[in-house]
Amino acid sequence: MARDQHPKQERAQATRAAIVLAAATVFARRGYARTTLDEVAVAAGVTKGALYFHFSSKHDLADAVIEEETRITSERAQATLAEGRPGLETLVRLTLGFTIEIVDDVVVAAGVRLTTEELGDELHVHLPYEMWAEVYLGLLRRGVDEGQLRSDLDPEKVARFLVAAFTGVQSVSNVLTGRADLVPRVREMWETLLPAICAPEQLDGCRHLPELITR
Amino acid sequence: MARDQHPKQERAQATRAAIVLAAATVFARRGYARTTLDEVAVAAGVTKGALYFHFSSKHDLADAVIEEETRITSERAQATLAEGRPGLETLVRLTLGFTIEIVDDVVVAAGVRLTTEELGDELHVHLPYEMWAEVYLGLLRRGVDEGQLRSDLDPEKVARFLVAAFTGVQSVSNVLTGRADLVPRVREMWETLLPAICAPEQLDGCRHLPELITR
Repeated sequence: MARDQHPKQERAQATRAAIVLAAATVFARRGYARTTLDEVAVAAGVTKGALYFHFSSKHDLADAVIEEETRITSERAQATLAEGRPGLETLVRLTLGFTIEIVDDVVVAAGVRLTTEELGDELHVHLPYEMWAEVYLGLLRRGVDEGQLRSDLDPEKVARFLVAAFTGVQSVSNVLTGRADLVPRVREMWETLLPAICAPEQLDGCRHLPELITR
Repeated sequence: MARDQHPKQERAQATRAAIVLAAATVFARRGYARTTLDEVAVAAGVTKGALYFHFSSKHDLADAVIEEETRITSERAQATLAEGRPGLETLVRLTLGFTIEIVDDVVVAAGVRLTTEELGDELHVHLPYEMWAEVYLGLLRRGVDEGQLRSDLDPEKVARFLVAAFTGVQSVSNVLTGRADLVPRVREMWETLLPAICAPEQLDGCRHLPELITR
């Protein structure tokens, strides 16, 4: 029996991962309220019993998708941060990377949808906002220290606004064009914000940064 | 019989208005997908038959709430526009007025919720975004003409971004604090954006504008 333990655990993990991916596909298309566990089981190709072995409710499943989104996006963020570029360029590259992930990765798209739907306390919807605000704050502080951002910048205020503005750009792009114009809209966000946050003498040197956002 | 016609029409209009208000209350609390026509009928104090006399589906009802939100907010916007203040101050006052309406008026709160949920083509969710972008565009152009905004401003780009940023501020405030911090967050939005859009020599004179946003 002991010899079977390891393969069994691997199979269980693979099943769990397949369920999370299937749930993301359904949540991204239909949102939290209209998703049923039956649909997720069908999409994952598992029995409802197998699904309940891993997740006791839709709430658990949505939390797992949001956690997986946070894991994927924070891993990418860590990699971008490790490149050691200046604070402002790192910030622009982070939002670029996240924009492309939203378009390309259904788990990220589902996580964004679940965390922008108005679900109140039902899910850990605040997690990604807090993570991004923290990362933005560090980069804005670094940008001030490096002299590229205004010395009188209030990094906490700008970090909070950046999280909200980026969320709104995603949500309006989704409503109006199904995210078809998301990349140019994120570029516009930066073109608009740079004169607000760059040190005046640094602005000309920073204007190329939004062009980093291409697919 | 003809003498009864007028009172009957009035009663029908009052019933319809009561249903729209009740629907807004339920949509604002539970969102589109989880709202049922039964709940709306109970909240409105009408029979389901009376409800169906006015609205053939939940879709119709949500459309009526969005139309009513657009009517309320555009009436207020028209009144603010008619005051004839400078473009930038009018813009700040419009977002202030809308912020307070979201907090105070359940029809506006419901309309905002219905139009930020990701419902795709199911509802006329694009209407308020297009209306606001159009109004912002006119005011930004006026602000450039009046010399308070940068002469090199791209009003269409800034109008689009402002709609998205304001939407995101509302949505993040709702997720994180149930809109308890909405007014200070809108003030921060303007404090961050003013250096991006004001003509440099006008900035000091414009810094007081976000303080207009009080309740």
